[in-house]
Amino acid sequence: MPDLLIDHAHCEKKAAATALNLLFAYVDRPEICQEMPPIVREELDHFDLVLQLLGRRGIRFRRLPPSCYGKRLHELIRKQEPERAVDRLLVAGLIEARSCERFGLLRQHLPDPELASFYDSLFESEARHHGVYVRLAKLFADDETVDARLAELAAIEAQIIEEGDPLPRMHS
Amino acid sequence: MPDLLIDHAHCEKKAAATALNLLFAYVDRPEICQEMPPIVREELDHFDLVLQLLGRRGIRFRRLPPSCYGKRLHELIRKQEPERAVDRLLVAGLIEARSCERFGLLRQHLPDPELASFYDSLFESEARHHGVYVRLAKLFADDETVDARLAELAAIEAQIIEEGDPLPRMHS
Repeated sequence: MPDLLIDHAHCEKKAAATALNLLFAYVDRPEICQEMPPIVREELDHFDLVLQLLGRRGIRFRRLPPSCYGKRLHELIRKQEPERAVDRLLVAGLIEARSCERFGLLRQHLPDPELASFYDSLFESEARHHGVYVRLAKLFADDETVDARLAELAAIEAQIIEEGDPLPRMHS
Repeated sequence: MPDLLIDHAHCEKKAAATALNLLFAYVDRPEICQEMPPIVREELDHFDLVLQLLGRRGIRFRRLPPSCYGKRLHELIRKQEPERAVDRLLVAGLIEARSCERFGLLRQHLPDPELASFYDSLFESEARHHGVYVRLAKLFADDETVDARLAELAAIEAQIIEEGDPLPRMHS
């Protein structure tokens, strides 16, 4: 469990960075300028919450090799715009959806009531972020194209999760 | 003035990224984990405020080539740790101090009362961030070493500002 919590803190940090990088990449889109800052803030709030939890449990936050999950998903992002924008947003959305699923499992099955309620409190915002990312992807391609690409990426994502990862991580 | 405001929005975005990158680089330092997230949030709040101001004035936010200021300062950062950490934090602190000076000039001299009061409202937080960065640099080297390096970097920074920049920017 300590490793999972530490990995979780790293995930929140990475989620904040992803949103900020999307803001940098697509500043000329008013919707991106409007939607990304609140996501960055929310992910940082979660990062703080996990750090506080670690602190209360006497677990020192430290570097931790990540699972292959994020890296493998990022390899799926096409290089050319506007496909690149669609993929970056959809991959960010898929990670949020998967985190949401994991938090759902954790809130149901963790015997530790503090942790279960913690994951319950994070569940809703991950679901919301997923929706925002998919909606924003539709700024860069028509709805059908985005939906088809989302289905395609989701299938590969499921396979990556299926294959698993030797490390005990949030997305393994 | 439109270009200055657009450049300002980019500066706030870059300031948020700098704080987040420092968090990534030094996650094993509890003080960094504690101090960086609030700075990221505050810079994003400022970014939002500048965007709203642009919106009210019908100025479209867009890409803009930055002044050479940031690039020249970043070239001064030493490559090896822990000197690198000291320099990254001090350079971030110097940029905040210079922004603070610029906001001070703007609040005094702008004929536009909305803008003058806007820059007045940002003044205090830039000054505070400067203090945080210098204090954090002292986690990575003793006080005297940091103070000496700060004086050295500040002298070079002043020279960069003195030389100026052909573009009308916040730090030119």
